[in-house]
Amino acid sequence: MTINIGVIGTGAIGREHIRRCSTVLQNARVVALNDINRDNCQQVVDQLTPEARIYDNAIELINDPQVNAVLVTSWGPTHEAFVLAAIEAGKAVFCEKPLAVTAEGCLNIVEAEIKAGRQLVQVGFMRPYDSGYRALKAVIDSGEIGEPLMLHCAHRNPEVGDSYTTDMAITDTLIHELDVLRWLLNDDYVSAQVIFPRKTRKASSHLRDPQIVLLETAKGARIDVEIFVNCEYGYDIQCEVVGESGIARLPEPMSVQLRSAAKLSTTILTDWKKRFIDAYDVELQAFINNVIAGEMTGPSAWDGYAAAVAADACVAAQNSGQIVPVTMAEKPAFYR
Amino acid sequence: MTINIGVIGTGAIGREHIRRCSTVLQNARVVALNDINRDNCQQVVDQLTPEARIYDNAIELINDPQVNAVLVTSWGPTHEAFVLAAIEAGKAVFCEKPLAVTAEGCLNIVEAEIKAGRQLVQVGFMRPYDSGYRALKAVIDSGEIGEPLMLHCAHRNPEVGDSYTTDMAITDTLIHELDVLRWLLNDDYVSAQVIFPRKTRKASSHLRDPQIVLLETAKGARIDVEIFVNCEYGYDIQCEVVGESGIARLPEPMSVQLRSAAKLSTTILTDWKKRFIDAYDVELQAFINNVIAGEMTGPSAWDGYAAAVAADACVAAQNSGQIVPVTMAEKPAFYR
Amino acid sequence: MTINIGVIGTGAIGREHIRRCSTVLQNARVVALNDINRDNCQQVVDQLTPEARIYDNAIELINDPQVNAVLVTSWGPTHEAFVLAAIEAGKAVFCEKPLAVTAEGCLNIVEAEIKAGRQLVQVGFMRPYDSGYRALKAVIDSGEIGEPLMLHCAHRNPEVGDSYTTDMAITDTLIHELDVLRWLLNDDYVSAQVIFPRKTRKASSHLRDPQIVLLETAKGARIDVEIFVNCEYGYDIQCEVVGESGIARLPEPMSVQLRSAAKLSTTILTDWKKRFIDAYDVELQAFINNVIAGEMTGPSAWDGYAAAVAADACVAAQNSGQIVPVTMAEKPAFYR
Amino acid sequence: MTINIGVIGTGAIGREHIRRCSTVLQNARVVALNDINRDNCQQVVDQLTPEARIYDNAIELINDPQVNAVLVTSWGPTHEAFVLAAIEAGKAVFCEKPLAVTAEGCLNIVEAEIKAGRQLVQVGFMRPYDSGYRALKAVIDSGEIGEPLMLHCAHRNPEVGDSYTTDMAITDTLIHELDVLRWLLNDDYVSAQVIFPRKTRKASSHLRDPQIVLLETAKGARIDVEIFVNCEYGYDIQCEVVGESGIARLPEPMSVQLRSAAKLSTTILTDWKKRFIDAYDVELQAFINNVIAGEMTGPSAWDGYAAAVAADACVAAQNSGQIVPVTMAEKPAFYR
Repeated sequence: MTINIGVIGTGAIGREHIRRCSTVLQNARVVALNDINRDNCQQVVDQLTPEARIYDNAIELINDPQVNAVLVTSWGPTHEAFVLAAIEAGKAVFCEKPLAVTAEGCLNIVEAEIKAGRQLVQVGFMRPYDSGYRALKAVIDSGEIGEPLMLHCAHRNPEVGDSYTTDMAITDTLIHELDVLRWLLNDDYVSAQVIFPRKTRKASSHLRDPQIVLLETAKGARIDVEIFVNCEYGYDIQCEVVGESGIARLPEPMSVQLRSAAKLSTTILTDWKKRFIDAYDVELQAFINNVIAGEMTGPSAWDGYAAAVAADACVAAQNSGQIVPVTMAEKPAFYR
Repeated sequence: MTINIGVIGTGAIGREHIRRCSTVLQNARVVALNDINRDNCQQVVDQLTPEARIYDNAIELINDPQVNAVLVTSWGPTHEAFVLAAIEAGKAVFCEKPLAVTAEGCLNIVEAEIKAGRQLVQVGFMRPYDSGYRALKAVIDSGEIGEPLMLHCAHRNPEVGDSYTTDMAITDTLIHELDVLRWLLNDDYVSAQVIFPRKTRKASSHLRDPQIVLLETAKGARIDVEIFVNCEYGYDIQCEVVGESGIARLPEPMSVQLRSAAKLSTTILTDWKKRFIDAYDVELQAFINNVIAGEMTGPSAWDGYAAAVAADACVAAQNSGQIVPVTMAEKPAFYR
Repeated sequence: MTINIGVIGTGAIGREHIRRCSTVLQNARVVALNDINRDNCQQVVDQLTPEARIYDNAIELINDPQVNAVLVTSWGPTHEAFVLAAIEAGKAVFCEKPLAVTAEGCLNIVEAEIKAGRQLVQVGFMRPYDSGYRALKAVIDSGEIGEPLMLHCAHRNPEVGDSYTTDMAITDTLIHELDVLRWLLNDDYVSAQVIFPRKTRKASSHLRDPQIVLLETAKGARIDVEIFVNCEYGYDIQCEVVGESGIARLPEPMSVQLRSAAKLSTTILTDWKKRFIDAYDVELQAFINNVIAGEMTGPSAWDGYAAAVAADACVAAQNSGQIVPVTMAEKPAFYR
Repeated sequence: MTINIGVIGTGAIGREHIRRCSTVLQNARVVALNDINRDNCQQVVDQLTPEARIYDNAIELINDPQVNAVLVTSWGPTHEAFVLAAIEAGKAVFCEKPLAVTAEGCLNIVEAEIKAGRQLVQVGFMRPYDSGYRALKAVIDSGEIGEPLMLHCAHRNPEVGDSYTTDMAITDTLIHELDVLRWLLNDDYVSAQVIFPRKTRKASSHLRDPQIVLLETAKGARIDVEIFVNCEYGYDIQCEVVGESGIARLPEPMSVQLRSAAKLSTTILTDWKKRFIDAYDVELQAFINNVIAGEMTGPSAWDGYAAAVAADACVAAQNSGQIVPVTMAEKPAFYR
């Protein structure tokens, strides 16, 4: 069985997913395209999907009976409306982060999905599909290190452009940890605090970099995440889980070990796109498989909402310097 | 475009490839099956490929016009005849190792292919498709460590059954190094020597284990491969390339790093099937892509022949205790 | 030249130092002993230093002209008086931690030393003499990683007895980090905060374990130290310095690398005494050399005071849950 | 108790040992010096040992009653005579390698020692005193990896001068492995073979570099040692022991772990003098302690002989290209 996918937003990420459907994944074909710039769609048709039809209107694409599932890869502020329309049309929808630009927007989607009576939404958080995080979760879940008590994490980029602002350290960068750590621990956040160390001289004048975010979970685990987006040396994702009887650490990406020039070394990636490149494939194939199976797994609308609420608290903590509670609506039975 | 594949031999390896075509790879479907035991085919139809047709005769399968390409995964001694028939039929053929049970048999295939005027054969050596070996080759080819002078390798299994014999250390185990090291170095073997260290008490009474194979290449590189098939601790593949200015080492498989019970540890695999699991997918997808593109890449009939000649020399070296020359036919221009 | 040492306090640590002087170090001999229990001294004479004289009174020992230098290894609350007496007598004194049980006591010693006109005191903080920390400091001082911005540290013990209390995590355990990190960064603390993660089930009912201490330095560096004294898996000291352009990490203790039982592993120590065993030798030899050279180096009375002030702030932070300022007297020119 | 040491040969190694006695070790003082160049002795007196007496004649130094023990650090060809004279005088003697320049010379010393009725000789092989090799031996002796079956070793220098010749790869370089591996395995060599890989372009025109030496032991273990003295990247000593149930590997020297410039790295030494710097101290202190205790331990005259015989076989194997037997005299009961 092959599902027919409609893609809304044919920018860089959209095209990546279209290429993925065409050349890597099984059982999916892109049949419908929409973009605010019709030329973008035409380029995709010319280069990747000659048989796809171009729609001037996203809602029309969503409602076309030949479209079985929708990919929302348009500009963030448009996500909420398109996801709601897909739910309304009873179609599975894969939405790149953010699910909505506000927590309320996410909650609107949650409510629409509950009303629709079945899960239709998968949010584009790819880390739970990374083989390293999966191996780490398997160790935790095995009980081998006892109950998790502390997580020491880092999210480092070699550099960011001048347009990157202090709050983007939360909304664009930490957002991935906010999602994956909830999943890793099967837990929720209850408070957030942000600490600003001495600033690196490599950062833009307006940017506070690095930052340390401290999170507390409902079960009492404490998480520290170092966010350092001008660390120079590489793109480096670290996650260490300290349990009652042992510590498990996220694997380093595979690398040839080199003895050369008085160093024993392995390579650290510098391009973030390579770090989770396989996870993107696994993530989208999982969505396709879910559509065929008729049952959503993976990051849900509720998970999108939870990440949004936690991000809001972290930004508030950046601004206030205080410990800020993370206050979520009660989790509907629908998502348990 | 989707190619129609016929599979000869539906034992364990055949079924793995059929499952792969059905659930992992792009652009291929299994449409024809043959096995000396028709019940095996029926099971595959029942479980994996309901639309595949069963042929009582392998040659008939090969010659059916609806079959675009052939997978030979039958018993080793039958390979040569089926590959020759596929070449005769002008069809691409993926043949699991060995290409033929003798070097002469391999040479027959080489000659048939040359006569056919184009490469049609891919031999099922998967290590050149392993991301670790590819990364290692990239380092060598970059010139970063200078010319390769020595290789220190190991091929270790936790244990083997009683039916495993001393020569199988060459023909079943070392055969993978014989293929991948030629590819890694872009070089040929000129001599082989085998050393028998003190025997482990864990080996069968008839089996000499471990063994060390010493190979010399045309460019003068020296290779030592430790073969140790009752090493107890794990399935462990090591390859270290000593160049003029540095040393590059095959990456260890990804693993969570654990601090537990007074040990800082990573996991060593014990099941060989997991070590190259991704490489099998990449290998067969490459074959499918080659069929579509109309041009074979990957381990050729000539490579199959080269591995067979080298293996013969190693077995002779086991028996004689001497340094045995590896004497190959001159490489036809066809394969350059 | 050999210096004559008088030792006050012949318990476990005292005896270790006496053994060290007798069998490992150069240019020192223990000639005088004092202990509240004279039998302890007699045992030392019988087993280690047949020529040492026993004094019933510590002050008499300090003032005996044949004693060139004093080791204070008695019960903590007695340290201040003995160190002051040694300063009064114009003699170099090595004092095990704590220099005094209060910050004021440390300040008394500082003032006495200033009045005496020359440094006479070395406090028994051994980590600056550890080859690992020295190598780490050399990397920082080389400028190779840029300015230090963050330190991620851990101090883990496999278990502690029931008498270990929550504040001892600061005064007995963190105290070593409080000393060595100031030295490593050449910086001072300005605030402290303590976070209590979910408690391990392995800890005594009265003990909060683990804890995370957050420190801020005058230069703006941020330090997090995980203290986990019932971590089960080993005695493990971690220190990672995140600089503007790179990260340097304290070396793991040397260990044979083992491939065994499906694990690639190195050993983690479980006995804290082995972790810094060489550092104790280097530390005491440095003191002896200083006495001969007539000039103190190493942890000074001021460093002892600084550690005491920081520890007080950390204990206050444990109790208040707040960010507590670390307020030190101005550093006298004498110690610059 | 302090022993009085006489040193014959005050070149670089001699001075290092004199400095060691003066500033690092316990219970020894250098009281007598001899060198073919009296000015060398005077420099040592001026700089290191003002109280030492200079002897124009080495035999006179050996026989002076005030000298308790002798260090022979003169030119290799003179060792045999000086060691024999020390034995004749009934004095303990520490002799730098080689014990004698021929195996027969070593045997003369062995016989003299047996005649003297007690062991007096310690040969200056320092690797058995290296903490890494000791830890490795402890693992082997614990039985944790079962019986040793194979050793994979490497001895690499970044570069050597033009005066370094092909046989020096055995007599100056491999000689350390020849000693330490016998000790590690508690075994003897029975055959040697030398393989010459493709030559590095960095080596002198007359030098064959790298080389691989294959050794077989009496118990059947097989050893391969890569000798590569122009490897460029560092001074690197590797030793991996493959046992029946696991593999133990010599620890890498301690190093700060660095994340910098897209590399996760540790430092490889480039200066051989730093690699075993601690082992030299431990070695000479052991000799001093042995003199005081009146009983020699450590590398004996017999061990010096065994290394010489093995080295002769390896040089013969270099020349012949054949497998050369290592034929030793029977081990006298005296050395068991």
